[in-house]
Amino acid sequence: MAASSDNSVGIVATQHVRVVEADDPMPLDCGKMLGPIDVAYETYGQLTPERDNVVLICHALSGDAHVAGVHGPDDRKPGWWDIMVGPGKGIDTNKYFVICSNVLGGCRGTTGPGSIDPATGRPYGLTFPIVTIGDMVRVQKRLLDKLGIERVLCVLGGSMGGMQALQWAVRYPETIHAAAVIASTTRLGAQAIAFDAVGRNAILADPNFAGGGYPEDQPPVSGLGIARMIGHITYLSEKSMHEKFGRALRRADNYSYDFASEFAVETYLDYQGQTFVERFDANSYLYITKAMDYFDLAAEAGGDLTAALSRTHSRFLVLSFSSDWLFTPRQSEDICDTLTGLCRPVRYCNIESPYGHDAFLLEPDTLGRILSGFLDSMHREVRGQAQPTALPSPSPGETDPDPRRARVDYELIEALIEPGSRVLDVGCGDGELLARLVRDKGIQAEGIEIDQEQVIRCIKRGLPVIHRDIERGVGTYCETCFDYAILSQTVQTLKDPARALLELHRVARRVIVSFPNFAHWGCRLQLLLGGRAPVTSQLPFEWHDSPNIHCLSLKDFDRFCRSLGLRIEKRIPLGTRRRRPIRACPNLLASQAVYVTSRA
Amino acid sequence: MAASSDNSVGIVATQHVRVVEADDPMPLDCGKMLGPIDVAYETYGQLTPERDNVVLICHALSGDAHVAGVHGPDDRKPGWWDIMVGPGKGIDTNKYFVICSNVLGGCRGTTGPGSIDPATGRPYGLTFPIVTIGDMVRVQKRLLDKLGIERVLCVLGGSMGGMQALQWAVRYPETIHAAAVIASTTRLGAQAIAFDAVGRNAILADPNFAGGGYPEDQPPVSGLGIARMIGHITYLSEKSMHEKFGRALRRADNYSYDFASEFAVETYLDYQGQTFVERFDANSYLYITKAMDYFDLAAEAGGDLTAALSRTHSRFLVLSFSSDWLFTPRQSEDICDTLTGLCRPVRYCNIESPYGHDAFLLEPDTLGRILSGFLDSMHREVRGQAQPTALPSPSPGETDPDPRRARVDYELIEALIEPGSRVLDVGCGDGELLARLVRDKGIQAEGIEIDQEQVIRCIKRGLPVIHRDIERGVGTYCETCFDYAILSQTVQTLKDPARALLELHRVARRVIVSFPNFAHWGCRLQLLLGGRAPVTSQLPFEWHDSPNIHCLSLKDFDRFCRSLGLRIEKRIPLGTRRRRPIRACPNLLASQAVYVTSRA
Repeated sequence: MAASSDNSVGIVATQHVRVVEADDPMPLDCGKMLGPIDVAYETYGQLTPERDNVVLICHALSGDAHVAGVHGPDDRKPGWWDIMVGPGKGIDTNKYFVICSNVLGGCRGTTGPGSIDPATGRPYGLTFPIVTIGDMVRVQKRLLDKLGIERVLCVLGGSMGGMQALQWAVRYPETIHAAAVIASTTRLGAQAIAFDAVGRNAILADPNFAGGGYPEDQPPVSGLGIARMIGHITYLSEKSMHEKFGRALRRADNYSYDFASEFAVETYLDYQGQTFVERFDANSYLYITKAMDYFDLAAEAGGDLTAALSRTHSRFLVLSFSSDWLFTPRQSEDICDTLTGLCRPVRYCNIESPYGHDAFLLEPDTLGRILSGFLDSMHREVRGQAQPTALPSPSPGETDPDPRRARVDYELIEALIEPGSRVLDVGCGDGELLARLVRDKGIQAEGIEIDQEQVIRCIKRGLPVIHRDIERGVGTYCETCFDYAILSQTVQTLKDPARALLELHRVARRVIVSFPNFAHWGCRLQLLLGGRAPVTSQLPFEWHDSPNIHCLSLKDFDRFCRSLGLRIEKRIPLGTRRRRPIRACPNLLASQAVYVTSRA
Repeated sequence: MAASSDNSVGIVATQHVRVVEADDPMPLDCGKMLGPIDVAYETYGQLTPERDNVVLICHALSGDAHVAGVHGPDDRKPGWWDIMVGPGKGIDTNKYFVICSNVLGGCRGTTGPGSIDPATGRPYGLTFPIVTIGDMVRVQKRLLDKLGIERVLCVLGGSMGGMQALQWAVRYPETIHAAAVIASTTRLGAQAIAFDAVGRNAILADPNFAGGGYPEDQPPVSGLGIARMIGHITYLSEKSMHEKFGRALRRADNYSYDFASEFAVETYLDYQGQTFVERFDANSYLYITKAMDYFDLAAEAGGDLTAALSRTHSRFLVLSFSSDWLFTPRQSEDICDTLTGLCRPVRYCNIESPYGHDAFLLEPDTLGRILSGFLDSMHREVRGQAQPTALPSPSPGETDPDPRRARVDYELIEALIEPGSRVLDVGCGDGELLARLVRDKGIQAEGIEIDQEQVIRCIKRGLPVIHRDIERGVGTYCETCFDYAILSQTVQTLKDPARALLELHRVARRVIVSFPNFAHWGCRLQLLLGGRAPVTSQLPFEWHDSPNIHCLSLKDFDRFCRSLGLRIEKRIPLGTRRRRPIRACPNLLASQAVYVTSRA
């Protein structure tokens, strides 16, 4: 039976618990009271004796409590995130105690508009109060209280699940150690609201909707189907949709010349609409999309996102997908920028994927490696264990350590940095230098790295790292957030070194820069006598394939620092063997140099 | 009265003409016959005695024949493209005789599903045959026949109007001199079909639709409104939508906690839906979107776009907008790539705009300058007049000629090129060199240029030019399409010079390359004695702000050509004064060089 193979959680059952009693209703954000509230939930894995391994998963718009496994021996359809949750999977049920509950307002076991209103004995329908993401999270907190769980290692979710994770971090900062926010946003933009609104319009306009009072066997099929189709288009990328369907026709090579669905993409959407209607309730669709539209984390603090996120104490992992146009990478970057502006370390990766917003359900390999690395490092952290300074050999899908870093003189840079400093390594590769500095100097480490695989290795090591091309700017770290920023063997590859240097001096008190010396005697002689662009052990590239887009010497850099108003605190000319600084004629004899600079 | 000010065509009237008689119906692509067919059209401007100034405008999905001017002294709402069409405007009615007709299947005067079926005496409704873009164009051809117009200077349109322009170019290659295809595509992708299909579903599901037989005063308001809302979202960019509406609420600062439209973007869409219903017919919406979904220019030639476009004889202007995600710049580039692959010269510009697909209605300045320049050059062409080699001083919004080109030795390059050659100038700037070569050597000129304003100046000059960053590749020109490709003062600024050189040698028999010599004695001495990255008159940049990302000498380039298997046919080392080649020690004494290379 494929569905409960070795790496499945096997047969599971949805459980139900009353978290709010009828006689003690819960206040909602809209000002109304609601009770009773029942919650449907599932759990997988075992709680440790220390009760320190709880992972709370929050589901998206159309999800439910059934994340993993099957509901019976003949159930062929495993839970909605079975690829990610199970023994040995990204969220490893051998290690973690996983909980997921259906959201308030949903239609899969938790109290929602389809539940019986005790006041009337009939389903609420549109008399159900408007609920918010905040209300959903309140109910989840009550569930944890019922289960006797006081601390959550990590709350995580994709899309609307990510909103709940953010809400958890702001509302219950002491309860959660970490939050993983996947393909999500602190608030919808106008376009996403517009798509939701049109979907709701379609439901409300369906005559079967009957003001929300439709009988169970006569739901507003066409309205909900249209809403689902609109949603579904926004979950896929244009590219992946076209690659999957193109202009293929369902039945024939020739057009039917009528208004029947004939393009494969039309019949696919018809099918998506139809199957959705079978498993989802139109009223819940209205309530949940409205909750998403209303969600605005900044509103928690009078419209100030920075103030809202300043209430959090948790670690953050923020993930986006390159082709997600519903909740864009830019929206995830905004979360990171706000957190780094608060001096909060954050892990961010923009995962390369063609699958659009749905990628959080369709990229088990990359997402699994990141989540398992993050959860493991968080678990080590709450247990007070040291993070690894060495990484195991790359597993399949991972590349070798960054070759750029091989020539960095780690020992020299280590010697320059005072113990306990806060250090930003720009182009940190797999985090080797930062890990050594953490181990030997007890620094607070953060990195910026452009390569996805290196970012993943940093996350595995437990290092905060931002996936970013610094050509786009260093980011929004607050003023002199760091004691040191390191820019190793990179300045000569940047389009605008002046901007980068000035930005780094804004965020760090000192900047450590290393670069190859273009005025080394070997270069000079090659150009003078050979009449060719120099190729040396420090500049090992042909003129046309070099990543070094600028040539500079120690003299050039001295002048450059003066022109930028920077003070050179240390200037360490080095030979090829690197250990001892070169004293005499450094601009002629040094093949590279390390500078420590600060604002004058 | 603002609407008929000096630069309006003033008061105009829609005219009607029967182009197909009932007793001689027109065959349609679907296999059925249709007659009678009446066409609603408007014209502006005067036909010249030579009848050589006809501009045929094709409208988009929701447009009509009323392009410009007003319908009466109290009419406050001018035609849909009044900003572009009028005396002195982008499409100048002082120069051109402009015609636009409502499309077949429409609801604004031309025969469509709302017309009376002579067989029944009642409106066709869904018994109207499915029509295609090809059928629409056939009807337009019949209109021109009726008007006695044999030649069209330019057929043009945006969105679905661009599809018609493409269709014209393939179906009636002898009739049109030029086609301008704006924000359009040769075929919809899966996502665009999906949006159309959901919109149609909403109409078909509306109980008022009544199988298309709704009475005129009881149309399927909610279905058509939803379809329009979906469409409208796709016409705007996410960014412009968010900048316009953000998360603003219509009435209050606080949420209403119900399902009424409260976000500004919701009420805006409601309004768009409502007003659309007042002026547009639901059946026409079905027929016209279906025609767009069916449109596939490649299908004209058994699915081969190249074969289809090979039937055209016209000049092409292809325009896209950077933020258009409905018909993307990539789709416009596909048209250009196919045409250049056929050795057909093409003008392409990807206009920087935040307004998404709707930009073709919202960028009158840029679009107007391009269209007027293109139309004027086409008019000169059909009149056998020479294109200008000198440009007038830049008008507002235009920049000065490209400073990059100032140091090119035009005379030297001119001397290298044989009369009548076909020449591609890569990084052609404002086309000055190409224009001189056309004038003095009678060459066939084409250019590639990255800067939008320079591209516009080339188009004004009548030069075929592709708006493109050659870092993305030279393009799909066919093998040895050109006698010469020119790469002037650019090779040292390219990330991958090897790729660029090889691509240019694929498309051209000879490549003329010029670059500054990094091994000039001045550079050598500066590095040797000064120990700094050289700054000379040929290399006038500081190390950190130089666009030159590679340093190369004559020796380097000699070796490079050998490594790429290229033959150096000429090697002309030049001094700073440039006129006479340097004979002795060129790698030491030349400050720059011009090479002519070919495949060995």
